[in-house]
Amino acid sequence: MTNKGVLIVLSGPSGSGKDSLLQQVIANGGDIALSISLTTRQPREGEVDGMHYYFTTREQFEQKLASNAILEHTIYNGEYYGTPKDAVDAQLAAGKTVVLEIEVEGAANIAAQYPDCVRVFLVPPSLTVLRQRLIDRRTNTLEDIERRIAIAKQELTHAPGFDYIIRNCVLTDAAADFQAIIRAEMLRDKTILDEVMNL
Amino acid sequence: MTNKGVLIVLSGPSGSGKDSLLQQVIANGGDIALSISLTTRQPREGEVDGMHYYFTTREQFEQKLASNAILEHTIYNGEYYGTPKDAVDAQLAAGKTVVLEIEVEGAANIAAQYPDCVRVFLVPPSLTVLRQRLIDRRTNTLEDIERRIAIAKQELTHAPGFDYIIRNCVLTDAAADFQAIIRAEMLRDKTILDEVMNL
Repeated sequence: MTNKGVLIVLSGPSGSGKDSLLQQVIANGGDIALSISLTTRQPREGEVDGMHYYFTTREQFEQKLASNAILEHTIYNGEYYGTPKDAVDAQLAAGKTVVLEIEVEGAANIAAQYPDCVRVFLVPPSLTVLRQRLIDRRTNTLEDIERRIAIAKQELTHAPGFDYIIRNCVLTDAAADFQAIIRAEMLRDKTILDEVMNL
Repeated sequence: MTNKGVLIVLSGPSGSGKDSLLQQVIANGGDIALSISLTTRQPREGEVDGMHYYFTTREQFEQKLASNAILEHTIYNGEYYGTPKDAVDAQLAAGKTVVLEIEVEGAANIAAQYPDCVRVFLVPPSLTVLRQRLIDRRTNTLEDIERRIAIAKQELTHAPGFDYIIRNCVLTDAAADFQAIIRAEMLRDKTILDEVMNL
């Protein structure tokens, strides 16, 4: 019997470590399928189209939006970010644990469309540490950083609506937290009782 | 900041392996507190009050029963055995993960008193395997065994009301499942957000 997969929505402020967390989970051998976002922003150095993001034009993105082929989208720093719905549905149907890494505002839209999804909010150890992380990236101006901190504060107000909060103090611990959530959530499946009764 | 601990109710049919599971979790270094039973029987040599059991008189036990200070109880060889509510509450207040191993019928009573408790149902791989385990114990007549299987079937009908189902095929896997549930449930605590915002 094949069961439908679990959809995990991973969200949290910019700089909370979502990318690093998922890389660590995959390095640990965690059996997760990542959805790849479509975006109109320019690739950063080292980012590969079809691996980190699908990069596209504004015109093409808006065409897909108009045909409801995008599960959720947001505009951040003036650029579109979206999740192609067909790819997610195919992975869930195949019984995979699908992780959607999305901006905080987009998480509510996903939950509305997938009521059984599991929402995980990743937070930095503190706002002070978050500020330092953004400074360490050396790609932001001080003005950018203060704006991001202000956004993070606002985003943190959404955290209580999530199912789980992971505080990313040590990456390996945070990854283990995430894997424990996946393992536990799979134990919510009641269909195994049929097998127990009938074998 | 100290948070309130999580109460885990572990239940499942006789022969599903509840005792072995908890022993394995403790052997793994799992940080769980088992509740200590209150009993009216005499201490045996080497038994320490407050460690193996809390020892008390029949009169005091019945007073506690009357004042709802006992969460669940049973009578064995004419002596009372019960779970004292105050001890469980003290452990929870100290932030501990408290595990109560309870008969299936008793689990609903605990859930009524602790609505935030996490209910875990342990099942054998199959009824066929359960029958074999009971045969292997060599302490049951065939009639006993069939009666226990009938009880197990009835108890399994309660499983869908539990939060998590662990199918105990391999003990070490089942213990890891249990520990993942504890780890995940601790991530439901939203109070850490205050620290993140204010540090």
